Amino acid sequence: MFKSTIFVLLFLPAPLCAQEKKRPREYGIITGVMQPGRQNSITDVAGVKVGHTTIIKGDSVRTGVTAIVPHSGSIFQQKVPAAVYVGNGFGKLAGITQVNELGNIETPVVLTNTLSVPTAMNAVIGYTLREKGNENVGSVNALVGETNDGYLNDIRGRHVTEEDVLKAIRNADTSRPAEGNAGAGTGTVCFGFKGGIGTASRKLPASLGGYTVGVLVQSNFGGALQIDGVPVGQSLGKFDFSNHLLNNVDGSCMMIIATDAPLDHRNLLRLAKRAMLGLGKTGGIASNGSGDYVVAFSTAETLRIPHNSNSPVMTITLLQNDALSPLFMATIEATEEAIINSLFAAEPMKGRNGREVEALPLDKVLPILKKHNSIP
Amino acid sequence: MFKSTIFVLLFLPAPLCAQEKKRPREYGIITGVMQPGRQNSITDVAGVKVGHTTIIKGDSVRTGVTAIVPHSGSIFQQKVPAAVYVGNGFGKLAGITQVNELGNIETPVVLTNTLSVPTAMNAVIGYTLREKGNENVGSVNALVGETNDGYLNDIRGRHVTEEDVLKAIRNADTSRPAEGNAGAGTGTVCFGFKGGIGTASRKLPASLGGYTVGVLVQSNFGGALQIDGVPVGQSLGKFDFSNHLLNNVDGSCMMIIATDAPLDHRNLLRLAKRAMLGLGKTGGIASNGSGDYVVAFSTAETLRIPHNSNSPVMTITLLQNDALSPLFMATIEATEEAIINSLFAAEPMKGRNGREVEALPLDKVLPILKKHNSIP
Amino acid sequence: MFKSTIFVLLFLPAPLCAQEKKRPREYGIITGVMQPGRQNSITDVAGVKVGHTTIIKGDSVRTGVTAIVPHSGSIFQQKVPAAVYVGNGFGKLAGITQVNELGNIETPVVLTNTLSVPTAMNAVIGYTLREKGNENVGSVNALVGETNDGYLNDIRGRHVTEEDVLKAIRNADTSRPAEGNAGAGTGTVCFGFKGGIGTASRKLPASLGGYTVGVLVQSNFGGALQIDGVPVGQSLGKFDFSNHLLNNVDGSCMMIIATDAPLDHRNLLRLAKRAMLGLGKTGGIASNGSGDYVVAFSTAETLRIPHNSNSPVMTITLLQNDALSPLFMATIEATEEAIINSLFAAEPMKGRNGREVEALPLDKVLPILKKHNSIP
Amino acid sequence: MFKSTIFVLLFLPAPLCAQEKKRPREYGIITGVMQPGRQNSITDVAGVKVGHTTIIKGDSVRTGVTAIVPHSGSIFQQKVPAAVYVGNGFGKLAGITQVNELGNIETPVVLTNTLSVPTAMNAVIGYTLREKGNENVGSVNALVGETNDGYLNDIRGRHVTEEDVLKAIRNADTSRPAEGNAGAGTGTVCFGFKGGIGTASRKLPASLGGYTVGVLVQSNFGGALQIDGVPVGQSLGKFDFSNHLLNNVDGSCMMIIATDAPLDHRNLLRLAKRAMLGLGKTGGIASNGSGDYVVAFSTAETLRIPHNSNSPVMTITLLQNDALSPLFMATIEATEEAIINSLFAAEPMKGRNGREVEALPLDKVLPILKKHNSIP
Repeated sequence: MFKSTIFVLLFLPAPLCAQEKKRPREYGIITGVMQPGRQNSITDVAGVKVGHTTIIKGDSVRTGVTAIVPHSGSIFQQKVPAAVYVGNGFGKLAGITQVNELGNIETPVVLTNTLSVPTAMNAVIGYTLREKGNENVGSVNALVGETNDGYLNDIRGRHVTEEDVLKAIRNADTSRPAEGNAGAGTGTVCFGFKGGIGTASRKLPASLGGYTVGVLVQSNFGGALQIDGVPVGQSLGKFDFSNHLLNNVDGSCMMIIATDAPLDHRNLLRLAKRAMLGLGKTGGIASNGSGDYVVAFSTAETLRIPHNSNSPVMTITLLQNDALSPLFMATIEATEEAIINSLFAAEPMKGRNGREVEALPLDKVLPILKKHNSIP
Repeated sequence: MFKSTIFVLLFLPAPLCAQEKKRPREYGIITGVMQPGRQNSITDVAGVKVGHTTIIKGDSVRTGVTAIVPHSGSIFQQKVPAAVYVGNGFGKLAGITQVNELGNIETPVVLTNTLSVPTAMNAVIGYTLREKGNENVGSVNALVGETNDGYLNDIRGRHVTEEDVLKAIRNADTSRPAEGNAGAGTGTVCFGFKGGIGTASRKLPASLGGYTVGVLVQSNFGGALQIDGVPVGQSLGKFDFSNHLLNNVDGSCMMIIATDAPLDHRNLLRLAKRAMLGLGKTGGIASNGSGDYVVAFSTAETLRIPHNSNSPVMTITLLQNDALSPLFMATIEATEEAIINSLFAAEPMKGRNGREVEALPLDKVLPILKKHNSIP
Repeated sequence: MFKSTIFVLLFLPAPLCAQEKKRPREYGIITGVMQPGRQNSITDVAGVKVGHTTIIKGDSVRTGVTAIVPHSGSIFQQKVPAAVYVGNGFGKLAGITQVNELGNIETPVVLTNTLSVPTAMNAVIGYTLREKGNENVGSVNALVGETNDGYLNDIRGRHVTEEDVLKAIRNADTSRPAEGNAGAGTGTVCFGFKGGIGTASRKLPASLGGYTVGVLVQSNFGGALQIDGVPVGQSLGKFDFSNHLLNNVDGSCMMIIATDAPLDHRNLLRLAKRAMLGLGKTGGIASNGSGDYVVAFSTAETLRIPHNSNSPVMTITLLQNDALSPLFMATIEATEEAIINSLFAAEPMKGRNGREVEALPLDKVLPILKKHNSIP
Repeated sequence: MFKSTIFVLLFLPAPLCAQEKKRPREYGIITGVMQPGRQNSITDVAGVKVGHTTIIKGDSVRTGVTAIVPHSGSIFQQKVPAAVYVGNGFGKLAGITQVNELGNIETPVVLTNTLSVPTAMNAVIGYTLREKGNENVGSVNALVGETNDGYLNDIRGRHVTEEDVLKAIRNADTSRPAEGNAGAGTGTVCFGFKGGIGTASRKLPASLGGYTVGVLVQSNFGGALQIDGVPVGQSLGKFDFSNHLLNNVDGSCMMIIATDAPLDHRNLLRLAKRAMLGLGKTGGIASNGSGDYVVAFSTAETLRIPHNSNSPVMTITLLQNDALSPLFMATIEATEEAIINSLFAAEPMKGRNGREVEALPLDKVLPILKKHNSIP
């Protein structure tokens, strides 16, 4: 049975397949009190593009690459304000110190598996060096996050190639990205179920500025799953510190936040910190072995930082501190929903050493949600 | 009606009064998957003492002091390993840099209102200077946290005295501290309801070390209240960004974590970071104006740091990184429960400018919890 | 002899007295390669005011207060961008977390002795609450730094009063502040000699922006003194780890940086970090017991942050990252020179327990500098 | 003439060549007040090994790799306590967050050029995966620092291979490493002169614990050079902000500190911070474009952290905070001297685009030092 699933994955476009499943909102699961954007996706933030390369080969290669591209121009020539928050630093995310020192990112953000970070960096560096206008560039800060998909994937084989990374960047578009077993989420495990990529967004009402916050996650961690506050993990008898399967999973959660709100590094870092509260609401505990990182960037056009400028100064318009709270709430809600979305979208997967990870069993989960009045 | 409540508060000992109300667990509300300690209190960590001074005077003085004392000896002479994590730095907590540089605390931890921090520091300094054995001490790092109770309290009047602080320290004992409108929680507001002091604990099974984690909070913040995951704030139509009352409340949440697990500064800081996930689970958003701080300390006896030592080295036994995850989960659960406990214990209060803050309306809340199957 | 010095200090205005001594530049000691501002003082940054209260009483009270006021308006109503860097966190500086979270300061910066921080905070809070326009303010983040003057001063007596603090704020003006035994530097010891307040500045050439960087220090630490690179401490046989006198001194160095360059929190924090390099150039080692903190703020008028604003956004002009390097060098040079200036200005002092601290012995130091060709 | 130099470099072992030049101490230049270890090298810390791969090809390949190996066993199986301090984060050092979260390093520390970081990471990951006992390892935190040698080197060509990195690790031994144009310092420029690798050490007297601190630097930055405090850059008329050549150089300084003092992460981070003071003493300013990072680790055998342990706890002996100050001074002195050593050892080099960088002109420098009485 598993093989036929693979067959579908290989011969039909992955996004189509992943989107056959309904998203939680279609079941009536409403996370939080704010409204999602049009697609309920990080790509609701105008200009943001996402691309996946899904790598499934043989019995044990279950990995991939996801690229998040902040805008359609050269990211290097038109950097965007950004920050990276370290929820739990057991991880190999590359590029953090320069982002936080200079307050910006200058490449697409790429996600992959733990041991393929260097390959992804090399690809991003090459991509940037070859970009028109960068002929004299000799310094590139590749921002590459990761998670450990080694439970299902032959991570030691380091099967991601630079071409896989470039393909994810090239394929990036502004449609809602495939969720679940796609890109960098291909081989991940979350709360003992198949995890993967998830995305969601919130759009503030005009009275609060009308800004959009979009989140994309690569879910791969443990704890005691809650969906819309309902203790699903506990009801299913599958949660950490009761169950050794979960304890065996090395995890991580990468969270990428995009917003069109005009925020600088300092306030983006504050935004990024709130994503951890969203992770907490799903029952995640940021366990010792979980590298939980949050990247936040602003797409506000007036905040673009030119790589070369004729002027030593720059005039910008920023949101004041007082106006941040609704954006904090939006970040928390979108992060929570993105994680749940990743679980609903993910398909069961068989991988390395014959291991199988089941998908979230909707036949059991939906009745639990109903019993708790989360859904009608 | 409100006045008669005040009458009771003034003429009966506050702890007794506050404990008349049932705690959430007595209603069947079970937060998380781990077991609480004997008292479900920070004082389940052996040796930890808590004392309150509740200050209610006239129409508009609604404030107080809470002291958390790590052990029964001289804290200055026998410092304990500690860390302070800044969830959101809009606050005036004093003493943070030395705690994080040297990795320890050397005074009781005191909580009070924002503008009374200096008075509390003076009291703690005086207390330490006068302590036997400290006759030559010329440097004291008073660790004082705060929250803004100015909605109900005449905070500008700075009504807390040094004697009030000393009384809280002197009164500290190892029984479960009063929750709700007590001590530093006397005048606080949380999710638009009367907040205050709350406490809870978790005890790990022997197979995971048998350690206890206790948390005490001073709840004073906004968001969209969830109890055991149930969207209570939303059901009651009272939550942030729908309701201007909540937006008007300046907030903060102080969270104090005690554990007997042998952890040094680095791992206590990691523990402290997890408390924010617990805050998130109650629907808190760490809004711009909320000063959210977490103090964590270990009471493990072999980790006590002598103020004067005959030896330049110290031999200690520490828990390894790998063993931290259950303590992380314990911290998250106990923080969530301590916040909910504070709301259940708090009584309605009338204060400054005739303002009234209602208690969590159990007559409405319990049916909501029942409807969501959180309680039978 | 010492008593007659005291006589002078009490009956002549302290600034006059302190300025009788020549500053290092008047001896031909030129620190670094950049040009100082007009007064070679923090007050070269337009609008910045400094005031001292010097407290010398009886045999053992040797302390004081120094206030640095960023501009002539209400600091609370017109906050300035700021950052605080912790060089070594063994200290009790108050207010750091809010400065670094919100990116601004909202009160004068006050320096005093370690155990008088709470009194200074109370004074600053009272000052702010009483300020016109602040009638409804219920939250004030007092920024108070300190150093331990307990070698000469009866620090346990906590002799600084709120009125002393208010006087320092009221007396603040834009003239070059008194150096040496003045204000918060009254009782300090540096490299085993009498330390105190010092100040210096650098003005960039127009081609690099023409900005001014001013530094004020409260010098109170050990190491192996170097003046203009010359190993003076070693030549005099008076340096740490050779000499127990020095080891006995609890120290600290507060460094305050003002600039008119338009920098936000992030780049002010970077500027602040460089001050530690200036401290290092004097031979300071940021010893375990030395609380070394750097406060940096920008006086650029367009960056003022209104306490209440009609708009959720703010348009500002900032210097780009690339333009920072000359400001870094200016900070390092001005910090180094400010520390040396404090030593040259300080007079010998007798204090607590009959202890005497000698001034830097110019009769010996100048020949050493000459021998090393630092001066003609 | 340049070609003949290359000839020598290619046909004689690089270390031999580099060591033909005298070190500063042999000229009588004595940095600081403490005593160096036996070799005045990072390898004075027992067990620490250093290896170089120097890559010089054709007209424009001038780069290399330097590996610092903390001990002779498996670093992965026997991790060492460590910390990384970010002096200035404009850089691409990989591995920082895990080091600071878990408090240890698990691979050799490798230095190379900016754009070859991913290749070095891949090599270190492969090395670790292949190591005996690591057959099931699926997560490796490669710690790779870098500096930008693009002024002389065709950095865009990314000429470093994984084999080059492995060779540096394999070649590592406990002898004093070659300084100057060796390994990762092959193509670097410092204060406008040829920079490179430098090393130095300090050994505390037995009364202060007898510990050794060793430092290795990869010097590649600007400012206004001072040698033993003497303003050499200024005397030569070659210093930043007077001279556009220097401004054009993208820089960085990697500083690696090894010590046998028993320090944990927290105190190693404090040690690491002090290295920046040593950099400052050479006239470095940590300019905007200079990625200045400090890695500190302890070789104390009882602090080794087993990758797999039978026990959840670990008993260790640590130095107390109070005993740190002499180690801070040792770090500052050894860092300063290591940078100066790198300049004295470096040979002139011609590289990319026909650019030439002169060596420190000893014929001019020694007389300046003599004039300032730094040397006899």
